[in-house]
Amino acid sequence: MSNQNIFDNQEFFEGYKKLRDNPWAANYIVEKPALFSLAPDLNNKVVLELGCGYGENCVQFLKLGAKKVTGLDISAKMLEVAMNENYSPDIQYINKSMTDLHELTEKFDVVFSSLAVHYIEDFDKLVRDIYNLLNEGGYFIFSQEHPLTTALLTQDYWTRNSDDEIIHYNLTTYTQEGVRTGTWIVDGVIKYHRTFSSIVNSLVSAGFVIEKMLEPVPSYDVMNQCPPYKRYIHKPDFLLIRVRKSNP
Amino acid sequence: MSNQNIFDNQEFFEGYKKLRDNPWAANYIVEKPALFSLAPDLNNKVVLELGCGYGENCVQFLKLGAKKVTGLDISAKMLEVAMNENYSPDIQYINKSMTDLHELTEKFDVVFSSLAVHYIEDFDKLVRDIYNLLNEGGYFIFSQEHPLTTALLTQDYWTRNSDDEIIHYNLTTYTQEGVRTGTWIVDGVIKYHRTFSSIVNSLVSAGFVIEKMLEPVPSYDVMNQCPPYKRYIHKPDFLLIRVRKSNP
Repeated sequence: MSNQNIFDNQEFFEGYKKLRDNPWAANYIVEKPALFSLAPDLNNKVVLELGCGYGENCVQFLKLGAKKVTGLDISAKMLEVAMNENYSPDIQYINKSMTDLHELTEKFDVVFSSLAVHYIEDFDKLVRDIYNLLNEGGYFIFSQEHPLTTALLTQDYWTRNSDDEIIHYNLTTYTQEGVRTGTWIVDGVIKYHRTFSSIVNSLVSAGFVIEKMLEPVPSYDVMNQCPPYKRYIHKPDFLLIRVRKSNP
Repeated sequence: MSNQNIFDNQEFFEGYKKLRDNPWAANYIVEKPALFSLAPDLNNKVVLELGCGYGENCVQFLKLGAKKVTGLDISAKMLEVAMNENYSPDIQYINKSMTDLHELTEKFDVVFSSLAVHYIEDFDKLVRDIYNLLNEGGYFIFSQEHPLTTALLTQDYWTRNSDDEIIHYNLTTYTQEGVRTGTWIVDGVIKYHRTFSSIVNSLVSAGFVIEKMLEPVPSYDVMNQCPPYKRYIHKPDFLLIRVRKSNP
């Protein structure tokens, strides 16, 4: 099930599009700024994005100076949108699962992945494949659902008081790695929980040097404008890591 | 307050001694085996332990081949026990706070610290000082209270059902770093909460290469013999990290 393709499910696809149309979505407010803050100088670089979806980031990489961008996604439906809305002669979109990276022959300077790796069962293989695709000195920069989010077996996230204010996050089964099946737009979405230490150890074992980790939190201004973001006081939604092939 | 010295408080000192006399203490069952599993070959190495307490680990480092061991602790009372119970001509005990490491002039091959760094306010300075004390290729290996433990402002850790079984861990204020005042044997014990990413970024900024991280969990056998350890299914008690000065 490590290459499930929920994004080609029509109901999911439409729900996801609606979610992404909301400018207050955590992707725009929290995740994307953090991801781009980790980017090295992209000038003249050859970039790969794993799980590129609509191709919004791919276009951004070009604007930041990348010479050539490859966007890879398991969903043909998502890539159809990408080809229509984010076409460029310097972007190549490939319909392929992240589990089949060993089939690529090109080399890259920077590999990005935004909120996709938690769908992949074999993280060790994934990071080994990415390491092999990178030129010496190359970067792998990714975001994923935070391990404190993926930990939960149920979606009973928060305990609230009678005023509907959050008292605490209901953390369960953090140390029990493996599959989690839940509802996100549709039922039966499969994700994989890994602990912090396990994620770090996989990256180090593949040969990567850990350069930076982020657990971004929106500003108090954002929290006041959009109170649901106050949940970040207790638990972040995303984890981001930048690693490098070889020491600088 | 970064150099509080609770261990010289008589009430704390006696309570702590009792705690350590319990062979089922998490230190013996979980933390110490994990700490020693991260040790490199100590043969002929010069070792420093920060927060050495009774000196139990110092003796162990000698048994593992260390040439010379320095044990540093803020508590004169703890070092008195160390001198009586764990004396060796090859161990030097120094009564000093971990905040004053810059005063040491000797260099070391391996620096250990067991469950002490969460008492230190300025982690950036601490790791810079340790980096400066290490020989090229040297290791810093430490354990600390898990960030999911240090996060809490109150000691209302768990939600239980009517059969007193744990339902979940009550996680609060994980993203809010800083001081936490709580009760551990005595009232008013001060610890400092840092997130995972902050700990990792401090180590990397000091120049260290992250080699291995552990969030150890006791075996199911241990959980069955000592049921309170079943809490580790939801949340580990300790975080351990091995970092190295320069790439191997």
